[in-house]
Formats: sequence, C-alpha cells, structure tokens
Amino acid sequence: MTVGQLDSSIVKITNSANKSEPLPNDKLNFGKTFTDHMLTVEWTAEFGWAVPEIKPYGKLEIDPSCCVLHYAFELFEGLKAYRTSDDKITIFRPDMNMKRMNKSAARIALPTFDSEELISLIGKLIEQDKHLVPEGQGYSLYIRPTMIGTTDGLGVAVPDKAMIFVILSPVGPYYKTGFKAVRLEATDYATRAWPGGCGDKKLGANYAPCVVPQLQAANRGYQQNLWLFGEEKYITEVGTMNVFFVFKNTETGKKELVTAPLDGTILEGVTRDSVLTLARARLSPEEWDVNERYFSILEVEERAAKGELVEAFGSGTAAVVSPIKEIGWRGKDIQVPLLPGEQFGELTKRVSEWIADIQYGREEFKDWVRVVADVK
Amino acid sequence: MTVGQLDSSIVKITNSANKSEPLPNDKLNFGKTFTDHMLTVEWTAEFGWAVPEIKPYGKLEIDPSCCVLHYAFELFEGLKAYRTSDDKITIFRPDMNMKRMNKSAARIALPTFDSEELISLIGKLIEQDKHLVPEGQGYSLYIRPTMIGTTDGLGVAVPDKAMIFVILSPVGPYYKTGFKAVRLEATDYATRAWPGGCGDKKLGANYAPCVVPQLQAANRGYQQNLWLFGEEKYITEVGTMNVFFVFKNTETGKKELVTAPLDGTILEGVTRDSVLTLARARLSPEEWDVNERYFSILEVEERAAKGELVEAFGSGTAAVVSPIKEIGWRGKDIQVPLLPGEQFGELTKRVSEWIADIQYGREEFKDWVRVVADVK
Repeated sequence: MTVGQLDSSIVKITNSANKSEPLPNDKLNFGKTFTDHMLTVEWTAEFGWAVPEIKPYGKLEIDPSCCVLHYAFELFEGLKAYRTSDDKITIFRPDMNMKRMNKSAARIALPTFDSEELISLIGKLIEQDKHLVPEGQGYSLYIRPTMIGTTDGLGVAVPDKAMIFVILSPVGPYYKTGFKAVRLEATDYATRAWPGGCGDKKLGANYAPCVVPQLQAANRGYQQNLWLFGEEKYITEVGTMNVFFVFKNTETGKKELVTAPLDGTILEGVTRDSVLTLARARLSPEEWDVNERYFSILEVEERAAKGELVEAFGSGTAAVVSPIKEIGWRGKDIQVPLLPGEQFGELTKRVSEWIADIQYGREEFKDWVRVVADVK
Repeated sequence: MTVGQLDSSIVKITNSANKSEPLPNDKLNFGKTFTDHMLTVEWTAEFGWAVPEIKPYGKLEIDPSCCVLHYAFELFEGLKAYRTSDDKITIFRPDMNMKRMNKSAARIALPTFDSEELISLIGKLIEQDKHLVPEGQGYSLYIRPTMIGTTDGLGVAVPDKAMIFVILSPVGPYYKTGFKAVRLEATDYATRAWPGGCGDKKLGANYAPCVVPQLQAANRGYQQNLWLFGEEKYITEVGTMNVFFVFKNTETGKKELVTAPLDGTILEGVTRDSVLTLARARLSPEEWDVNERYFSILEVEERAAKGELVEAFGSGTAAVVSPIKEIGWRGKDIQVPLLPGEQFGELTKRVSEWIADIQYGREEFKDWVRVVADVK
C-alpha cells in the first residue's frame, strides 16, 4: 500500500457548536485567545499522513510516556494572516515558513510534507474562522503550525508517529502605542546556539533554555538578550528576532545595513529575508551596502564611540521590526541613536512601512502574498 | 496565604479498577509497558505545589497552546527500583536523581521542590504497584519522574503552571543475553552540547537533536554516537551514557580509569558517580589512577596503537555498564580489547558486579539504597 501524502482535498471538517464573537481590538493579547477551530493531521511511519481534520479547538490527549513530553520532539512556525482594505484575508510568504518547517522536521527525524498542501489546509482553517481576523493596521491573525512526535514509550528513538496541528490567535500590534524601542543585554555567559547544533531550526529545544538568561536580563532592566557567540563576541540574534545594525562610515559617508550570516546558528527569519530583499531592491547602492557578515559587539561598541552607529532594529513575525535604543554590555549601555523625539531610527521606520504596505495590501506584491479567504 | 510546598503526607490515592498481572520476564521491553498507577502533582506560581495524586495510569489532557508542546519546557529523570533477595523493594541513590532534577528544573525556570518529599511519593506509588516489580538479576522497575511546564498561551515566558508526573515501567536487562559489547561512532560533525548551554541537565531539549546523528551512525553499523567536542576532539559522553576508558602505561605498568570532567557539557550521571566512588575506594592506588580529565579521541587512537588501551565502557541507569568493543573514527575502527572469548573487559565486569551486588541487596550499602516497600 502507498504511504499517504498530506492531502488537503480530503480534509474532514467538523463545525464547532459555538461561533465566537470577535473580541474588541483592545482586548487582543498575543497568543492568549484562539479561534473556534483547529487543524490536526496524524502521521504514522506505516501509513503516512492520515485524513486532515478541521474541528473544534480543544485539548489533546497525550500519553504520559509520549516522546514529545520527554525528548522534545516538537517544532513550530509562526506566520500571520491580514485583513486587507478590500476585505480579503491574505497570508504573508507562507512558502518560506513551510520550507523552514520541513527543515526543522527533518532535523529531528519527524516527517516532512508537501508545503502547498499545508498552506491550502491553513487557508481552509482560516476560511472557517475568518470572521475572527481582526481589522486595522497592526492587527492580524497569528497562525501557529506545530509538529510533535507522538510515539508512546521511553526509548530514545526516531518517532514512528507524529502530528501536525495548527491553531489561530487574533493579535494586536506588538507595541500597543506604536513603536517602543527596546533595551537588549548583550549576553556572553550563556550560549543560545552553536555550530553542529540546531539553532537555525524552529525547534522547541531552542526556547526553554533561553528563559532564565532572559529573566536575568529583565531583572537588570533589559527586555531581551542579544546573544553573542564565541571569543570574538559575534552578534547572532535575539532569540525571538533576528537583528540588524546600521553603520555610517564617517570617512566615505557610506551607510551599511548589516545582519549576521546564516551559518547554522541563526534562525532563517522570514522577516529577516524580507528586510534584506527590500533593502537590496530599494536602497541606493551608491549610498548603501547591505551585508550579511560576522560583526561583534566590540565593533558595535567601537563604532558607537566613533559616532558611526546610526540605528538598530530586530526583525520577526510578531513585531515585524522592533527598534533598539540601548545595548547593555559589560556593565555599560551602548546608546543606539533614535530620531529626535521618536522611538525609532529612519531606516527602521521605512522598512516597517515597506513591509506593512505589502502585508495590508496597499502595495501589490504577488509573490509574497496569498489570498486565502474573502470576508465581503 | 503560604505558597504550598510539595507534601507527601497529603497525597490523595485513587485505586485503579484493574490490577494487572505481571508480564513474564521475557516479555519486558524497556519503557513500553507501564504499571497501573501514576503520580501527578500540579504547581502554580500563585499557590505552589497542590495535593499530590496517585491515580490510574492514563492520558494527560493538554491544550494545543501549552508551553510544553512549543518551547520544550520539559525535563526528566531515570532511576530504578529493585526487588532484593529478601523481598524488599529498594531504590538506588534517589537523592542524586532528585538533586539533578531540581537543577534541571531551575535551568529552565520550572519550580523546584523538596527532594525527600518526591522520594517519599515515589515510594508510595511503588507500594501501590509493588507486585509488578520483576524478580531476578537484571530485572527492575524503571522509574520516570518528569516535569513539564503547563502554561497555556504562545508567549515565550517563565511558566506560571507546571506538573510533575511519575510513571513506572517493569524492565529486563538492557542486553537480554548478558553483556553485548557495542560499537560507537566518534562524532564531530554534530555537537551535542556547548559551554553556556544545558548539556549537563536532563532536559528534553538535549535529546531530539541527537536522533538524526544516531540514525546516521546506525546506518553505518554503530549503536550510538560518541560525542566529541571542539578542535581538540575531546571525548564527552554517549548521550544516553557517560563513558570510561582504561589505559595502561607500558613504561610504568600503571593503569588509569578515566572519564570526562563535569564541565557543564556532560550529564552528571548517577552511575558515573557510583563507578568513580567505588573505583576510588576499591582499586589499589599503587596500581590505578582514577581520573576525571579531558582526553581526546586522538589520545585513544594513539594509545590503542601503542597497545595501551585496555578497555572501555559506558555507564548509565538503563544498562548500568555497557562494554565497548569498537570506535569508528575517520573511516577506521579503533579496536577496544575484550577478555578472550568474552563481551567485556576485566574492570567492566568487576564494576558491573560491584554495583549489582549493592542494587540487589547482596551487599549492604545503606547510603545508596532506600527500602520503599516490602513484598513478603
């Protein structure tokens, strides 16, 4: 018998008995409330992907010996659906998330799947709950595809059972009052990821170990860690965001937008890729270099002292871009310039607008935007 | 109000409707069948540890947004209960496991607890299912204490809810036909742990990322990876075991038992500690050095070539000691000597007997053995 491929055309839909009313926009907290339905698809090594099910949101029954609870056979993605000004529901670059999800799955011996089929299933799930996609700039529907190993038993081995589930959470802007620049603590006493590890994959395993250092940074007044690597103190990423710096060479006047290279220790962010792609297309090459290269907190410190640090921001699905105002390093704060009286630098603002215009359909950008539902 | 401490005296016991018959010893597979009862204790940041419950073994209901499924807030322990020749049930060095479990919990911001209270609760759980502890050398009851974060919602944050659960699995000897020496593949293309990481804690996060390299090694005929670290190619551990080597200096005739030091990248194995403690107490210091020091696969290769490699074994709760016969390294196999016609070296056998004699009560060793039930 043929092992089953993931197939969106055979989805079984069970409607929820209650149809929720949308919460007012000001009551939306990130990832705290969910829509009425969820998607689940089970997989076994023997039969492959089973019939996908869209059904009422509800608890999963998990055996206490299940491998997801002991050995972290788990991975996830995060993407967003937007309600455009002409009342369509679109999702942003889902092919990038699906590609990364497949790479994450392969890294921990979980099954891969046809990306387009899962995108189609996510579309059908959203169609079911489309009245709960919030309206307005900064509001969206956060989509959380997840895959877990579901083999019961305590041997550490390749799972022979797994499950994809997708849940949806209506969310507001990450910072309720527009941009709010963050303070990061450059962290070298703990290490997020390393060569030969799995820091470039969206595995559960990369997250829990970062929470204590985050708490320690928070106790010193910093929102997040800026993870450094190695004796060189290379800047890697923020754990929930990639990170970009803008330098200006005082001799030549040329500016550089720089982020760490994808060397296996850094998450391959979809927003990171979007920022790089747009910056390369839209910034004048006479004025700008756009680089993926190694750079260290020591370079940032030195160039800040020389007046060459122009601005810095994080990039990720949740906040899209997140301006940075200070970086704690060896007991001092490196000041990152902001525009006078504002919470952001000039490029941070421009990049944010470039992406939002595409996401909310004010600018057509077909390759990056998929229409999944119509709420007219 | 006072936040609740873990308290074994208030445990609530609900008996299972069916009382299982023990499986015949030859049907026991590691971690595949479980006893009739399980222990669960819930924790909240607000109220602390709730009333512990011993109840019928059964599925957990977990919300699809729960942090254990997304961010690997999970850790576990492994220890064993033995049926002694005078029909007592004992557990081996549980204080060591509880100490490590508390350290694992603190590393990922999960709650700590009073070790003695959890040992007492495990004793009560075993009392409930004591007829399922198998008899005979090599047979035991594997105990799996687990802690998971149970906060629902997708923000990456310190969990404000958690749960301990303990399940029990009757198990046979790791190798059914006595010792069977294993082949390991020295692995430097993937990295299990890193300074500033969490490789010394028993977190779920350390396990899933090691399964693909294990599969690759298995495809080349090796049972496990021997994880190397750094340019020096230091030998660290086997992922499910610590590892010991015996060298003999051909000039002085002195032997050395050596294992990697606890530098934060190596699990603090209870069997490792037991081997070191017994070896230091029982091996003649004129003939033996017992060292925790850095040593590399290059040293092993060189000393094997000089005829100075005497034997090697892994140590862990599952197999206790596991002899090693070959180590794949750069396309060749380093041969590890075994006694003629046997699957083990001389010290491997002695160490195994030392520990088994204590575990099965043939030798009194009060500090390491706790009686938890009486089956007479």
